[in-house]
Amino acid sequence: MGFQKFLWPPKLITRAMCRNITLFRPLQIAEEVNKLLDLKAQAQATFPNTDDVNVNQKFTLKTPKGTRDYSPEQMALRNSVLSKITEVFKKHGAVTIDTPVFELKEVLTGKYGEDSKLIYDLADQGGEILSLRYDLTVPFARYLAMNKITNIKRYHIAKVYRRDNPSMARGRYREFYQCDFDIAGTYDLMLPDSECIKIVCEILDTLEVTPYVIKINHRSLLDGMFEACGVPASSFRCICSAIDKLDKSPWDEVRKEMIEEKGLSEEVADKIGEYVKLHGNTDLVDKLLNDDLLSKNKCATSGLEAIKLLLKYCNIFNVADRVLFDLSLARGLDYYTGVIYEAVLLGDSTKGEDVLVGSVAGGGRYDNLVGMFDTKNKQVPCVGVSIGVERLFTVMEQKLHAASRKVRSTEVDVYVCTAQKDLVDERLKLCNELWENNFKVEYSYKKNPKLLAQLQYCEENSIPFAIILGQSEIKEGIVKLRNVLTRDEIAVKRTKLPEELLKRLADLNINGTVPI
Amino acid sequence: MGFQKFLWPPKLITRAMCRNITLFRPLQIAEEVNKLLDLKAQAQATFPNTDDVNVNQKFTLKTPKGTRDYSPEQMALRNSVLSKITEVFKKHGAVTIDTPVFELKEVLTGKYGEDSKLIYDLADQGGEILSLRYDLTVPFARYLAMNKITNIKRYHIAKVYRRDNPSMARGRYREFYQCDFDIAGTYDLMLPDSECIKIVCEILDTLEVTPYVIKINHRSLLDGMFEACGVPASSFRCICSAIDKLDKSPWDEVRKEMIEEKGLSEEVADKIGEYVKLHGNTDLVDKLLNDDLLSKNKCATSGLEAIKLLLKYCNIFNVADRVLFDLSLARGLDYYTGVIYEAVLLGDSTKGEDVLVGSVAGGGRYDNLVGMFDTKNKQVPCVGVSIGVERLFTVMEQKLHAASRKVRSTEVDVYVCTAQKDLVDERLKLCNELWENNFKVEYSYKKNPKLLAQLQYCEENSIPFAIILGQSEIKEGIVKLRNVLTRDEIAVKRTKLPEELLKRLADLNINGTVPI
Repeated sequence: MGFQKFLWPPKLITRAMCRNITLFRPLQIAEEVNKLLDLKAQAQATFPNTDDVNVNQKFTLKTPKGTRDYSPEQMALRNSVLSKITEVFKKHGAVTIDTPVFELKEVLTGKYGEDSKLIYDLADQGGEILSLRYDLTVPFARYLAMNKITNIKRYHIAKVYRRDNPSMARGRYREFYQCDFDIAGTYDLMLPDSECIKIVCEILDTLEVTPYVIKINHRSLLDGMFEACGVPASSFRCICSAIDKLDKSPWDEVRKEMIEEKGLSEEVADKIGEYVKLHGNTDLVDKLLNDDLLSKNKCATSGLEAIKLLLKYCNIFNVADRVLFDLSLARGLDYYTGVIYEAVLLGDSTKGEDVLVGSVAGGGRYDNLVGMFDTKNKQVPCVGVSIGVERLFTVMEQKLHAASRKVRSTEVDVYVCTAQKDLVDERLKLCNELWENNFKVEYSYKKNPKLLAQLQYCEENSIPFAIILGQSEIKEGIVKLRNVLTRDEIAVKRTKLPEELLKRLADLNINGTVPI
Repeated sequence: MGFQKFLWPPKLITRAMCRNITLFRPLQIAEEVNKLLDLKAQAQATFPNTDDVNVNQKFTLKTPKGTRDYSPEQMALRNSVLSKITEVFKKHGAVTIDTPVFELKEVLTGKYGEDSKLIYDLADQGGEILSLRYDLTVPFARYLAMNKITNIKRYHIAKVYRRDNPSMARGRYREFYQCDFDIAGTYDLMLPDSECIKIVCEILDTLEVTPYVIKINHRSLLDGMFEACGVPASSFRCICSAIDKLDKSPWDEVRKEMIEEKGLSEEVADKIGEYVKLHGNTDLVDKLLNDDLLSKNKCATSGLEAIKLLLKYCNIFNVADRVLFDLSLARGLDYYTGVIYEAVLLGDSTKGEDVLVGSVAGGGRYDNLVGMFDTKNKQVPCVGVSIGVERLFTVMEQKLHAASRKVRSTEVDVYVCTAQKDLVDERLKLCNELWENNFKVEYSYKKNPKLLAQLQYCEENSIPFAIILGQSEIKEGIVKLRNVLTRDEIAVKRTKLPEELLKRLADLNINGTVPI
């Protein structure tokens, strides 16, 4: 890892923003098609008799706005990415839970501020008033409070719903996956927090999307810094959200907003400006602990001490070189109460890629959310991270595309072909023998398929082996085993087939010639 | 397999009915709790000031009616069952797809008959009119028509939604999983159909829920039989749905319904009665092919020929002894056009279990559904099966419960403990070494946890190994490796730890002493 090699500080990009980065063509095409279908639907609504629909279908055949089907190839890639991520969670002893796709509307009320308008409501069909979940964090907090759970380490991978106006060409949808890992419980300072960072590193390493950097900061330090600079306490949150814009806007604009809209004096704004341009590691923490203004502020020093301990644990976990203490990191959500972090992919400049690809994970500590659901306001401290899996799917798709590799949507080992007519029973018999030996096997559902068509199917679907069965082979108790890629064929005794096949499949996997 | 050993014909049970069978106590308790919460919510709505809620939470903390959270233990069991099922689908070369949780309402309209009233609608928030999916078959047909796919073999495991009045004590919910496998494409007679049956057998065998029987029948045979008995063509479907009730009602009641409500003569009803009590195998098919009435009916003979071929393929696939040709099997859905089947679990009477446990899979051929979505009414023939995974989850839970086995909700290999104070850094260091060697490792998030508390955690969570680290071990470059179950401890050189741990974990798995 060596992000220090790249231009620094790069223009920082939040997850919200990175969802806007233009991706590759297939998505653009999909969006254009969807736009046209939307227009067609509108036209039909306006002029219902102008379309050529028949009795079978009086509406445009499409998925709802902002949603999509996932094809077998997309699903294969997603499942492969998600299973790698899940393995990391399991390595750290996490359990998984699931919650309903909808919640009582009241559960979501008052948790998302202005964004509440993006919540999908269900129709009132004479029962409870329900809404689709907007994220996985609020249902998690509801689950903890409802079941009086005071400590748990869990992951949850599921779809969430937002009535946004998404730009699908840019990879944003109204239905999308979230992938959250959280540790709830009353523990000692920075121990669960540092494991979250370790987990993000393991995930990004296992997906081989390096280089990346994990920026960290602390809400107490931000608050203490504001206080020390002379920001009135009532303005802390709104100044925080101004700072949060630094990843999209230059300092001058943010400064202007703080002065003209948020009412800070030029002097106070400039003091803040001096701090938020700082980033570094333990040396910077030590420098700030001796800073004239901050060293006198309890809030700031407690934040700095926490960061210092976090960096120490990151060092033990061998990830310190991937972590950057960055005072401009603010993160939008109000509910954070301690450490905050965000992982950003950096393009490989040696390959001429853009220096920044975008945010792929983010999170922090939120000690007061669960209490909002408890009648006695009992708190359960939490820290967690959300892995930006949609963004990672896209990055992995691009990587495969760049390497001209195709995703296999099945895992079939061998295809059983016949070379002559009227051998369907023999084909079924051999398939059954192979299934019973635990091989993944396909065959044609045509009674008398052409040999060429069968072999072509193998090539198109990257099936590594074909078995060819003819009258003479059956008589001799052998089969022809064909390597689909090299087209080499050998005769194998039928009794030896499972053994031979197992050996050859193992060879293929060792040599890594089977894609994905 | 030997269902012949049991009482036959047993009272047949459909999937719809088996969802009503009373299950075990935890679910009953859950329902009682939910009823009380419902009452509390009603009371609050009526007398809003009588409850002791505070500012933080003005509503009853619950999941929506008919839904539930899944705990870590439930999720572990579900994921284990689903991954075994998925392996079988993959063995047969199936791909997977996903579709949005909601569809344009029009997509669902006219597909479910009377049950349409159970569809969940989304609120009209100024866009398209949407509904939650009711099953996975209609979205699959929509997907095929929309993408002009004429052949695919896919599975789809996802939640569906029905505004039923579910009895949760009986395992019925408004949000539940479906697990569908379908083969679409124009192929030769009974080839894909028999593979569906083979797949159901492999799934039930791998889950070890034997004994079971797969009942089969054919819509053409039913239609031909009705015609031959003198039922007017316009009454075929409604007589079919009367026959479908034979699994819940005795013949006398069904006969009465056919005569008094459906207008059949007594003579016609009694002719039908003679047929629907028949069940057997190829011998029965041959007998019916020579039957006076049926042998003259084209529809009936084509159905019988199809069944005969299916039984032949089932024989090649080595599952013929698990298949029963049963003329009373009708299945409710209108859209079936060919073979229909249903798998029923039989209790083990030697163990004093009920003879019938219920239906766990069902399906059939539906050649006309995709055409309903195509503007040109282009058909894509389909055959498929839906695995009753919710029912299977319950059966597996009962089996574990009966065997007094606990489900592990994590897969942690080893827990790193310290025996003295101020060793947190050493614990983290060792954890990191083990993670880097790909072990699943946990440790306490307390800085100075008590040794007893750490070891207790291991026992409570069935973690097989604990490592104990103290000042003297660190100095000597060793660790104490403890078998949590036997409480045996040995000293291991730290450099040899990964090797030793790997060996001992492998031993555990071989001996099968680690639960699940």
